[in-house]
Amino acid sequence: MKQPIIIDTDPGIDDAAAISIALNHPNFDLKMITTVNGNVGIEKTTANALKLKQFFNSNVPVHRGASQPLLSEIVDASDVHGESGMEGYIFPEIAESDLASTHAVEAMKNALLNSDAPITLVPIGPLTNIALLLTTYPEVKTYVKEIVLMGGSASRGNVTPLAEFNIYCDPEAAQIVFNSGLPLTMVGLDVARSSSLTHDTINELQSINDTGNMLHQLFKHYRGDDFEKGINVYDAYTILYLLHPENFAVQEADVQIETNGKLTKGATVTDFKSHFPNTSVVLSVQANIFKQMFIDALQYCK
Amino acid sequence: MKQPIIIDTDPGIDDAAAISIALNHPNFDLKMITTVNGNVGIEKTTANALKLKQFFNSNVPVHRGASQPLLSEIVDASDVHGESGMEGYIFPEIAESDLASTHAVEAMKNALLNSDAPITLVPIGPLTNIALLLTTYPEVKTYVKEIVLMGGSASRGNVTPLAEFNIYCDPEAAQIVFNSGLPLTMVGLDVARSSSLTHDTINELQSINDTGNMLHQLFKHYRGDDFEKGINVYDAYTILYLLHPENFAVQEADVQIETNGKLTKGATVTDFKSHFPNTSVVLSVQANIFKQMFIDALQYCK
Amino acid sequence: MKQPIIIDTDPGIDDAAAISIALNHPNFDLKMITTVNGNVGIEKTTANALKLKQFFNSNVPVHRGASQPLLSEIVDASDVHGESGMEGYIFPEIAESDLASTHAVEAMKNALLNSDAPITLVPIGPLTNIALLLTTYPEVKTYVKEIVLMGGSASRGNVTPLAEFNIYCDPEAAQIVFNSGLPLTMVGLDVARSSSLTHDTINELQSINDTGNMLHQLFKHYRGDDFEKGINVYDAYTILYLLHPENFAVQEADVQIETNGKLTKGATVTDFKSHFPNTSVVLSVQANIFKQMFIDALQYCK
Amino acid sequence: MKQPIIIDTDPGIDDAAAISIALNHPNFDLKMITTVNGNVGIEKTTANALKLKQFFNSNVPVHRGASQPLLSEIVDASDVHGESGMEGYIFPEIAESDLASTHAVEAMKNALLNSDAPITLVPIGPLTNIALLLTTYPEVKTYVKEIVLMGGSASRGNVTPLAEFNIYCDPEAAQIVFNSGLPLTMVGLDVARSSSLTHDTINELQSINDTGNMLHQLFKHYRGDDFEKGINVYDAYTILYLLHPENFAVQEADVQIETNGKLTKGATVTDFKSHFPNTSVVLSVQANIFKQMFIDALQYCK
Repeated sequence: MKQPIIIDTDPGIDDAAAISIALNHPNFDLKMITTVNGNVGIEKTTANALKLKQFFNSNVPVHRGASQPLLSEIVDASDVHGESGMEGYIFPEIAESDLASTHAVEAMKNALLNSDAPITLVPIGPLTNIALLLTTYPEVKTYVKEIVLMGGSASRGNVTPLAEFNIYCDPEAAQIVFNSGLPLTMVGLDVARSSSLTHDTINELQSINDTGNMLHQLFKHYRGDDFEKGINVYDAYTILYLLHPENFAVQEADVQIETNGKLTKGATVTDFKSHFPNTSVVLSVQANIFKQMFIDALQYCK
Repeated sequence: MKQPIIIDTDPGIDDAAAISIALNHPNFDLKMITTVNGNVGIEKTTANALKLKQFFNSNVPVHRGASQPLLSEIVDASDVHGESGMEGYIFPEIAESDLASTHAVEAMKNALLNSDAPITLVPIGPLTNIALLLTTYPEVKTYVKEIVLMGGSASRGNVTPLAEFNIYCDPEAAQIVFNSGLPLTMVGLDVARSSSLTHDTINELQSINDTGNMLHQLFKHYRGDDFEKGINVYDAYTILYLLHPENFAVQEADVQIETNGKLTKGATVTDFKSHFPNTSVVLSVQANIFKQMFIDALQYCK
Repeated sequence: MKQPIIIDTDPGIDDAAAISIALNHPNFDLKMITTVNGNVGIEKTTANALKLKQFFNSNVPVHRGASQPLLSEIVDASDVHGESGMEGYIFPEIAESDLASTHAVEAMKNALLNSDAPITLVPIGPLTNIALLLTTYPEVKTYVKEIVLMGGSASRGNVTPLAEFNIYCDPEAAQIVFNSGLPLTMVGLDVARSSSLTHDTINELQSINDTGNMLHQLFKHYRGDDFEKGINVYDAYTILYLLHPENFAVQEADVQIETNGKLTKGATVTDFKSHFPNTSVVLSVQANIFKQMFIDALQYCK
Repeated sequence: MKQPIIIDTDPGIDDAAAISIALNHPNFDLKMITTVNGNVGIEKTTANALKLKQFFNSNVPVHRGASQPLLSEIVDASDVHGESGMEGYIFPEIAESDLASTHAVEAMKNALLNSDAPITLVPIGPLTNIALLLTTYPEVKTYVKEIVLMGGSASRGNVTPLAEFNIYCDPEAAQIVFNSGLPLTMVGLDVARSSSLTHDTINELQSINDTGNMLHQLFKHYRGDDFEKGINVYDAYTILYLLHPENFAVQEADVQIETNGKLTKGATVTDFKSHFPNTSVVLSVQANIFKQMFIDALQYCK
């Protein structure tokens, strides 16, 4: 049976890889893509989601969500992802009419309440939409199978010494999600550090198919001069984990979000000794296995 | 012209006084009552709003809202307001069907986007619903005339030494609202301390009309043995301020919410010297004028 | 019997009034004056203490103490107290040799351990020295009769909306002192607001004696154009309270210092309902009684 | 030339290893041992320092220091280090008269101000004494060569997910030390994790000499059932680093202490990208080299 999923996203280069697989892999029933402010502003992340929908000529609806975090100031990452958030490849034009009219939060609520089977939420940007959904409509929780999110770290961060970007962007939203009582899997910097796509692999992508070529261009632009070092396609780990969880090392922990620290805001404080774990923390995957899963998954794309 | 308003409320004894006037006074066009977790849980505050609707045989819709604060633990005040939140008077039975089906946040969004004239929001409970509204649907801001809220204090608090109950219940929601950029009026403990309804006035209420009698019973139960001392009908100040702002002393200030303090969570830090005020702080009203406004307003009730 | 006291001070205009009385009034046995960074830097507060010693031709030793707060950045108040911290009167020259050679903390420790009777500590600046004393030499606690300090507020502050200057300057030191287990009296903004020296009283001072004239000049310079409004000689309240506690309204409370708040750092969170009070909070004194106590006390000065 | 050093310590099992080397190695001129509350209470850490002095029949003075952290509650680690803090070996009796009479802070101040050459401070417990020293007597800074401390972590902690024990015990003291402007080397969990003494090495110690045997007994008791896994003799890294810095990988960083976090208190937030580094962070040493340095250093002991 196909896994029903919703991707909540702020594309973003690495989001593009995750979305490409989610849209095309036969194991997934992607109900919708919802967008959120994150790597770049909501107008751009929404446009980027629509570009990918257009690229794959897909019917999956795209719903626009939150334009800013609950409480924090907007953090801009366009220095990393480029002006548009998805620089490096020329996508076809999109039409305003491609955007679904209902708000992401309402759309998720309706999809969940009307679904035959529980849906897996896959947030790969800041957790603002998911927090708004669970707070405004707690009755949807029964219809959520689990949340498999890209974000956080059990050790050091990337945007600050101890915080990862997605969680740092909206720590209060993250705190709401991690305390929602729902089954949670944190796919964060730990697993990304354990393996990455090498320069050679990224070059291989080019010749696989159109999608491989598109991702190759994006990744190349993304890394610029550091291209030689390979790349962490963070968001893709969530999708590949959903396909092959058996390939990943996972440990249970209680994860709480630091929302008060003067230097540690957004840290995902991960207590592996807790007797009350709330999260499955994905820690590692073998580099060669990760590469193979990624290339295999791309085969289903055009 | 009637003032279009929405009351967002957690009744609560003093809420009952505010709602009674809002439902009946000819100067108001009450679009809807939305309920929120606060003095007691959402089931009870919603039932209490419906009891008042029933008491006045009103057509104003009641929409249920948030069942818990954004991030904070639920604070229970049933020791103050009684088990049901509105003890002391026997209200008629209510029917489940009296409750409107859409969520408070959606209902407010729809009302605002479809209104001919900007609407004044009058939150007299924790600010959870308003924060969810403004975060999920920032486009409604254009249709909000102003927010006149009961909550906060420029000096000492009531639930902790420096925090007032409504703000303390959901400080993060309050921070969202106070930083929304909308015109704000804070009707808090300062004005309530400057005047209160005396024991004698509360006894007078009894003979005015049915509503006066109902409020008399509620107030009497509310104060119990302290009845002699008079009562602060906090929420009523917002409604009376909307009717007669000229009777109140008001000062501009920048108000920010302490969300990080270990002892000061929920304090409304009020800087009267700021060059960037975001709030009109209502500081005082003469006791005899307040009494007269209150009794005059009740004349419009059954 | 004379009360043995130590004044820990950062003169400062209002400190000058307190020190003048403490040095001359027959009820006090002033063991030493210790200086601390506060209204102005340690070099200047020490020089000012020496100027007063010289003015009164006194033998009481002056010991220099902490040059900065434990953790906080130095706050400068020379905009209030003038460049030297005690502008407005021409004091005689002082000699470097007038300064005692031991550090304030060591000097207090030695005085306490060698005293026949418990000594009252009277800190009227930031609490850095006292915190260092009690942390480094906890064995002195047995020899401290009580701490009567100028600082804090049960309601609003002066340097920020909720923090008073002395506490705000070194909140961590204050937290150490308020949790020391020693008997504490907080003489703060509450009592100062309840009464102040009027313009007329300050003019009267001039003709009393040399000291009255000196204070008149300082106060006049201190208030500048606002001279007409009268003056709060904050630090003098501690000394007058020690002379005539029966004239002051006092209430027990648990006072804790907010050290974590983003907006409330240094607030003295005063819980009058606590069952575990640690502090006597001095709340008010009648203005005419305060004036009379002040003028009477000055009679003992030259 | 011998390196003049002062060890500030809370023995503690691993402290014993560091002190043994510091007392006997010809490269060090150990000026004094100062004790601090930490692994166990000040009475016990002081007794343990005296036991080691007695064991080596040494003339180096032992001075007792702070009995509690600046602001934090005392944390007890006797579950790790045993009831006395140094269980597992029967030391000779000590006499009260072996303890020097001046306080650790005063003793360090005097030693520094009277030293011919700048002294290296080697704190291997909580930083309370060092913070009190630098705050009360900032004039000693000129006489401190550098501070080489055991504590902190650039990634995960040990006592909480993100805090190391010594720093966690007194985060405010740590913040004072890390912001003192003095040259700092942080020898923390990172280097300890990179290498440890194996079960076999610990067994080898037994036959080296009396000291090796004493440490063997302590380590064995320390690890109990986990003895097979080897041991991290944290504090010994500082002393070995001072002997052979060339064997360690070090990176400059700005290290700040989280003092406000609700979950991250005591985290040493280590920013390797900062343009204003304040600390040399010791990251790793090869396990075989570490073992050899340790065994070589023990040769100088009885």
